[in-house]
Amino acid sequence: MSGVVIPIGGAAREDGAVDSAVAPGTPAAASIDSLLRLTQADMEKVNRLILSKTGSDVAMIPEVAKHLIDSGGKRLRPMLTIAASQMCGYEGENHILLSASVEFMHTATLLHDDVVDESDMRRGKLAARMLWGNQASVLVGDFLLGQAFRMMVEAGSMQSLEVLSNAATIIAEGEVMQLSTAKNLDTNEDEYLNVIRSKTAALFAAAAEVGPIIAGKDKATISGFRSYGTNLGLAFQLIDDVLDYGGSLDDLGKNVGDDFREGKITLPVVLSYRRGTDEERSFWREALSEGNNDDGNLREAMALLNKYDAIDDTVARARHYAEIAKDALAPMKSGVHKDALIEVLEFCISRVN
Amino acid sequence: MSGVVIPIGGAAREDGAVDSAVAPGTPAAASIDSLLRLTQADMEKVNRLILSKTGSDVAMIPEVAKHLIDSGGKRLRPMLTIAASQMCGYEGENHILLSASVEFMHTATLLHDDVVDESDMRRGKLAARMLWGNQASVLVGDFLLGQAFRMMVEAGSMQSLEVLSNAATIIAEGEVMQLSTAKNLDTNEDEYLNVIRSKTAALFAAAAEVGPIIAGKDKATISGFRSYGTNLGLAFQLIDDVLDYGGSLDDLGKNVGDDFREGKITLPVVLSYRRGTDEERSFWREALSEGNNDDGNLREAMALLNKYDAIDDTVARARHYAEIAKDALAPMKSGVHKDALIEVLEFCISRVN
Repeated sequence: MSGVVIPIGGAAREDGAVDSAVAPGTPAAASIDSLLRLTQADMEKVNRLILSKTGSDVAMIPEVAKHLIDSGGKRLRPMLTIAASQMCGYEGENHILLSASVEFMHTATLLHDDVVDESDMRRGKLAARMLWGNQASVLVGDFLLGQAFRMMVEAGSMQSLEVLSNAATIIAEGEVMQLSTAKNLDTNEDEYLNVIRSKTAALFAAAAEVGPIIAGKDKATISGFRSYGTNLGLAFQLIDDVLDYGGSLDDLGKNVGDDFREGKITLPVVLSYRRGTDEERSFWREALSEGNNDDGNLREAMALLNKYDAIDDTVARARHYAEIAKDALAPMKSGVHKDALIEVLEFCISRVN
Repeated sequence: MSGVVIPIGGAAREDGAVDSAVAPGTPAAASIDSLLRLTQADMEKVNRLILSKTGSDVAMIPEVAKHLIDSGGKRLRPMLTIAASQMCGYEGENHILLSASVEFMHTATLLHDDVVDESDMRRGKLAARMLWGNQASVLVGDFLLGQAFRMMVEAGSMQSLEVLSNAATIIAEGEVMQLSTAKNLDTNEDEYLNVIRSKTAALFAAAAEVGPIIAGKDKATISGFRSYGTNLGLAFQLIDDVLDYGGSLDDLGKNVGDDFREGKITLPVVLSYRRGTDEERSFWREALSEGNNDDGNLREAMALLNKYDAIDDTVARARHYAEIAKDALAPMKSGVHKDALIEVLEFCISRVN
């Protein structure tokens, strides 16, 4: 439907985009290696702090927390806080506390999400709720959220506390919003964007924003980092949505189709449903609202996504937000940190390759 | 077992206690009317703030929050914050924000508790999770917790934030502890006290402590209010435990036996189990660990509680904590607020009459 040809799978860009665009045209170029290198020393401190703050005399708490924290997330959000702080010339140690807070907020959300979604798996491992029960997932999530706020208080920046507590509220609002849109195929693109702006982008935004805040930067810089985080978060979530359908019709590997089987309405589905025929819309309703979601129907769904360019166009939307994120950083001074943050945008999009 | 005769049901005290003790001997004397009167004007502001902070464009949030907030809790915790602030001569408006925060933290805990306990009812109404699902209870709880922290940030007192975020962590720890002690009859009195010190007393303590903090009082005063809150909370929870068994063998009214049917180990059970014969201990295990909890067994349980003075002795323990709470306030200057806070202790114990 969109007239623009979007290169996925390493195809050359037909529009001959210049370097100033977020260009996924050169596979293997985009990675988070620079970010990892720049933040490595600080992230080791963050990881030690995270481990120490999951400690509790109540045995179940460190067990559950360790299960989730060890399960290999990329820690992109806490790295954002570290990178933004460094880029803004921050020289104290409070970015370590705020970075760990951000990761704890994220972990608490994952624990509660699994209960809400009744998920069996998380990052290829059994979800905590399958091992320790829903109860432990709810309560250990609450514990981690409490610890997150304690670390924010310890960091002593009232403005960071404001940003992160706002994010906590907005994330919960986004999750409730998602409950109302769940299995509802009337959800349109704007409504879906509102959901992911709250449930995903708000924490990315806060993670990036607290860096310039503790470094004492001016309002324009703070706002720039916030915009970077928001739009990176949107792009990240949209690419996640695409990856859940394997990125292409040929790739029906493991973890593909989870959203489909849970009846989740994501942007590829929104686009394909709205562009489809009456008959195709019936198919989507039966599959997602009524749960006819076997592998045969998954293949049919992927064929419909393909027919209406829904995957490619979702990637195009993600690229749009990545471009906004890049421009948000444009006024900031050049250097290794800025380059690394821009490369994260490219990496994020290039995950579909 | 305890040699002291404890007056319940309005019986005269045989030990002829003097007025300086927390004396429930005169029924109808103890009420929270003084506290209600002193805090009324401020509590109207708190209630308006609470209503405005449950607002959200996401329709389900105000619905769920209103259901719980309207369901007629006594609002003892937020009243404590108001009364303590007034007693310490605080003249600003931030006690309104902190008081509402305390109530939101409590409400969030109730929502999550219902999910954890799989409760059907809450305060004589259907639990939110029965009306909107576990998912909404988890997420609206998270939303209210987020709003609580936003209000604390707005109040601008870093020390209050520290106290309340510590409480949030400790409450969650207490709830997890309770998971491990649930249905475990080996739980002893110290272990049970640790649970209620965390899950109930921590919020009472924080609610009382933030008053002197925002009023800029000295460390000894702050610590005194904290001690008052902690011990009031312990007494309050122990009396709640007693009330769940109706306070006496004759009173098998509605809401009686909920803890028994849920297999909850509370102090009356701990005492009766430890004091019982092998045969009686088998009965408790079958009733609470294995779920043989019909009305016949509830009557049998109440007979055993009576046989070993477990109800009376739990009230005696509660009175012990109420005495500590009273002494915590002793060095503070006399006046209507101090009188009202002491009357709350008497009211708390007199609920078993």
